[in-house]
Amino acid sequence: MTDTSTRPAPAPSLARPVVPPGPRRGLGLGELTLDGGFWGHLQDTNASATFQHCLDWMERLGWLGNFDRVAAGATGPDRSGWQFSDSEVYKLVEALAWEQGRTGDPAVEKMLTAVVDRIAAAQDADGYLNTCFGHPGRPGRYTDLSSGHELYCTGHLLQAAVARVRTVGVDDRLVDVARRAADHVCREFGEGGTPGIRGRAGICGHPEIEVGLAELGRALGEPQYTEQARLFVERRGRGTLAPIALLSPAYFQDDVPVREADVWRGHAVRALYLAAGAVDVAVDTHDDDLRSAVERQWARSVERRTYLTGGMGSRHQDEGFGDDWELPPDRAYCETCAGVASVMVSWRLLLATGDVRYADLIERTLFNVVATSLRTDGRAFFYANPLQQREPGADVQPDAVNPRAEGGVRAPWFDVSCCPTNVARTLASWQAYAAFVEAPGEDPRDAPAVVTLAQYTAGDVRVELGDGSVLALRIDTAYPDDGAIRVTVVEAPALPVRLRLRVPHWAEGATLAGVDGVSEPVGPGWVEVPGILADGATAALDLPVAPRFTWPDPRVDAARGTVAVERGPLVLALESVDLPADVDLEEVRVDAAAGVHPHGDGAIVRARRLPLPDGGAGTPPFTAAPSLPPPDGGTPAGFDVPLVPYHRWAERGPSTMRVFVPTT
Amino acid sequence: MTDTSTRPAPAPSLARPVVPPGPRRGLGLGELTLDGGFWGHLQDTNASATFQHCLDWMERLGWLGNFDRVAAGATGPDRSGWQFSDSEVYKLVEALAWEQGRTGDPAVEKMLTAVVDRIAAAQDADGYLNTCFGHPGRPGRYTDLSSGHELYCTGHLLQAAVARVRTVGVDDRLVDVARRAADHVCREFGEGGTPGIRGRAGICGHPEIEVGLAELGRALGEPQYTEQARLFVERRGRGTLAPIALLSPAYFQDDVPVREADVWRGHAVRALYLAAGAVDVAVDTHDDDLRSAVERQWARSVERRTYLTGGMGSRHQDEGFGDDWELPPDRAYCETCAGVASVMVSWRLLLATGDVRYADLIERTLFNVVATSLRTDGRAFFYANPLQQREPGADVQPDAVNPRAEGGVRAPWFDVSCCPTNVARTLASWQAYAAFVEAPGEDPRDAPAVVTLAQYTAGDVRVELGDGSVLALRIDTAYPDDGAIRVTVVEAPALPVRLRLRVPHWAEGATLAGVDGVSEPVGPGWVEVPGILADGATAALDLPVAPRFTWPDPRVDAARGTVAVERGPLVLALESVDLPADVDLEEVRVDAAAGVHPHGDGAIVRARRLPLPDGGAGTPPFTAAPSLPPPDGGTPAGFDVPLVPYHRWAERGPSTMRVFVPTT
Repeated sequence: MTDTSTRPAPAPSLARPVVPPGPRRGLGLGELTLDGGFWGHLQDTNASATFQHCLDWMERLGWLGNFDRVAAGATGPDRSGWQFSDSEVYKLVEALAWEQGRTGDPAVEKMLTAVVDRIAAAQDADGYLNTCFGHPGRPGRYTDLSSGHELYCTGHLLQAAVARVRTVGVDDRLVDVARRAADHVCREFGEGGTPGIRGRAGICGHPEIEVGLAELGRALGEPQYTEQARLFVERRGRGTLAPIALLSPAYFQDDVPVREADVWRGHAVRALYLAAGAVDVAVDTHDDDLRSAVERQWARSVERRTYLTGGMGSRHQDEGFGDDWELPPDRAYCETCAGVASVMVSWRLLLATGDVRYADLIERTLFNVVATSLRTDGRAFFYANPLQQREPGADVQPDAVNPRAEGGVRAPWFDVSCCPTNVARTLASWQAYAAFVEAPGEDPRDAPAVVTLAQYTAGDVRVELGDGSVLALRIDTAYPDDGAIRVTVVEAPALPVRLRLRVPHWAEGATLAGVDGVSEPVGPGWVEVPGILADGATAALDLPVAPRFTWPDPRVDAARGTVAVERGPLVLALESVDLPADVDLEEVRVDAAAGVHPHGDGAIVRARRLPLPDGGAGTPPFTAAPSLPPPDGGTPAGFDVPLVPYHRWAERGPSTMRVFVPTT
Repeated sequence: MTDTSTRPAPAPSLARPVVPPGPRRGLGLGELTLDGGFWGHLQDTNASATFQHCLDWMERLGWLGNFDRVAAGATGPDRSGWQFSDSEVYKLVEALAWEQGRTGDPAVEKMLTAVVDRIAAAQDADGYLNTCFGHPGRPGRYTDLSSGHELYCTGHLLQAAVARVRTVGVDDRLVDVARRAADHVCREFGEGGTPGIRGRAGICGHPEIEVGLAELGRALGEPQYTEQARLFVERRGRGTLAPIALLSPAYFQDDVPVREADVWRGHAVRALYLAAGAVDVAVDTHDDDLRSAVERQWARSVERRTYLTGGMGSRHQDEGFGDDWELPPDRAYCETCAGVASVMVSWRLLLATGDVRYADLIERTLFNVVATSLRTDGRAFFYANPLQQREPGADVQPDAVNPRAEGGVRAPWFDVSCCPTNVARTLASWQAYAAFVEAPGEDPRDAPAVVTLAQYTAGDVRVELGDGSVLALRIDTAYPDDGAIRVTVVEAPALPVRLRLRVPHWAEGATLAGVDGVSEPVGPGWVEVPGILADGATAALDLPVAPRFTWPDPRVDAARGTVAVERGPLVLALESVDLPADVDLEEVRVDAAAGVHPHGDGAIVRARRLPLPDGGAGTPPFTAAPSLPPPDGGTPAGFDVPLVPYHRWAERGPSTMRVFVPTT
């Protein structure tokens, strides 16, 4: 080990989680400095509260101590946490690695190093590293591929190591640990690996190793890791995993080969981590068929199996996707981790294809799933993100481990606690998803570099264009509260450069004023800032973020007869705490004809009360005549109802909530 | 053991599963002979196909062999089936016992005796009887009260023995086995039982022992069994059961004491078996507070947590009740066993209170849940009974064990196969729920006997009135296809007797012609046949079974904007196989203004096609404008859509299905 305090760090442009071959590269974390704003604020909270919060809980529950017990040879039948608890430690390390890389904060480095030392001490001589399996008193290595999560944990270890490679370089203890772990996986599960399930056919019940191996292969220039990822992707869908009681092979995507599937199904996080890994493999191996398969799955799954929030997973039962159009607001699972995983997939597809719709979904998901999970203080989280709360949430213990998914209150920690650390690593690396760069062609005059802003926040961009030149921009905006985005060229390269901005699909009526100051209407998609980008030039994109009604597709049965309100990229919600004391949320019927109006960072709609039937019939709640709202002009009179951003609901005491509100 | 072929059988009036103290007694199986009809046909199918089908599967899967292995001292770590598989054997024995008692069929007796011999051989010397726990190579007795199901299995054994006591008498091998098993439970779990969890606080994670002990106590005149049932009921709801991962104490009703709860919650079958046992205990101990608690729970659960079919259980996740108004048609669990258990509870409350609403729910549930489960040939079953099928069911293997709940096709057997035998025992004892009798008072002239028909089918009734006299009736009806029910007095007692009939809550416009032939309108509820019941007298009840629209309570979000069609007691369904080839079920919008008309045993409604949005937006299925059906008179023109009885859906090849169809 070298002294990390003196080694040269990689270039700021390299600090990014996904570095595929191809014409587009994502922004390095060091290429964008946030200036407060929506994401800057969350990133600060993440650093000041969430990291330590996660570390404390994992220490308290013995999840870190599991590594110490392995190192001490003190394992036994008892062990703290679920079989996948190692992965939470790795995800926190990944978060710390990105944070350290972005900020250089020595306190973060110290926290990281202390954890990595304990991880490293638990690694076996042959590279195997897992605290649940393979040691005295524990089940043997790879004896339960369906449920054991060993390779899943390893995958997260590799992703954490990728963050270190890209922020401090290869000369790092975690990178060494990951390299040895990856080599071990290749030995055991490669084509020449241990015969039987562990060798030629072995896959992990929970995908993640694929994406970890693929990116570590890129980071370290080790094609054998990519090849192993490819093997895992190709082996899947052939029914080799031992069944888990009462769950079908679709639960872990072992029902249909990846390249043959048309839609995501089963456990959402598994499906999405697998898809991310499949894109990586497809891009690295120039396998257009595989890439097209994931694009096809993305399209159908987004268009038929995805919530207004971007949330994925309609079922609690298997934390899984439902059938097409099965999108119940109340039982929406929309696991926070599935939101993170969806961003992972869409980002990879965006880099692979340049298609703006992937950036649109990333924005939707970041604002309405990822940002929803975290409580304002950074010390509590939603695991599931339902779009309707029927009973006020009050069953969360403020200082206890909670069941993973129920209840309308954010919880400090969960029995299965995958979400907090997933949020942490995503927020710590937010910049990486904000923009991408295409290097200039051989003749930059014909094919100039292109910088594309995919997400908006106030801050300073300084992008390396690939030919040694730099484009520096200042971005001023209060987005998403306000749709005005002003881009000032702080430093332009000598050669031409193109700047593209994203007009979200919802932004009907957007205008762009180019460097000549002339404002023109622009339609949804990528729009190029016209004119020469010279120092001091400005462009102004104006996205209409006035609140708007959004209506469910008629096949979404569970939202029939309702309307939602969105405001810019934000989904809004009606919380019972905002209603007059004598109004029950179930009585509220939105009068859509009266329109929707801005109100703070939310909106106001006009509503009427629907008289609810009396109970006491002694029969199921179905009657001979429909309940109808009073006719226009009837009593009681209409009243105003405010809606608030969904991502901040449930922070003002117990309440019931609706994103989809019935209409008159 | 005596020779069962020569012993005197108990009176036909005694052959009934529930014999509580109090003024009302249910019909004995021997007091009603079905003459074909809806239930007679199902009962024949049950006898001719289902019993042997169940027996064959349990033999094939080793669930019967488990008893042989215990008897042979050959148990080990491997064992066939789930920990509760013994209970399926007991439920089949109960079905056989009722069938034998009703028909005297020696083949049924032979089948039963052969199984009972194998059961008896597996009983330990101290009365303990379980093939999963308590023998070499198996976990110890009562080491997993939360999940082990030992007392649950015993409860079903006791219910089977009750059937024997009431059909062949106490001198029976199964009764001996059950008595010893019950005594063992009282020793282990009584107030003076083994200290700790097994003694003063022990309960079973799955209720059932309560109802089994209570009825066996009645059948054998053993108050200690009732007392033990009382202890189990009272101990519950105090959080003594060890948690099951990711499930809350409400899952097994260990969250709130029975007498304090306001609504059913958690696993539906558990909640309902517990409620049935609680009613038994309440009635036997004159505990009006406990009885009122169950009545209160029934009312709120039926009015807010019960499907149009009578199905209970809105969630797959925990096979449980959802929140109030959480009744998604597509993900309705509505486990067949919960339907059986609901009938058990309502029947007990009906006998305890005489309230007609319990009989109404029994009818709804029998026709639309219990009768739905069984395929016409009696050899396949629904486990879950959803009210909407989004994808055509095709994932059931015709000769394989299926996952328990998914798919729109009835399956021959399940991994967890509680439903087939539960249907079998219910059908075999159907007569017991058809009527009840109140004995005459001290002076029969002032307080004559009352016979109340609660369910309708063609057949011959011969009721013992309690004073040695008999009322014999002939019932002619094609119910539920036709609402005309003609009752002829075949033999009247010398003293006056009252005859009451049920007018279901839906039967607006019903008429009753008494013995004088005069037809009068009658409202829902119990109606008494006016006039003197003499030999040859007739009464005619006419229930309007014309199809009718039924509308969801506005709080049932998942059915908003839809309408269902019922016809008499039958819920109808729209199956895609009944649509024109070019019409997608999702396009169908019912034009309720055009009415609903009879069509075979179902109905016809007028519908219009809603143009469905094109896909391909690359966004979740929510748009800036609502999709509206074409205005009246627009194209395409309306068309007729037939609906069929829900209980017979999915028998004409793969189809999608809706009970709740969107309206124009």
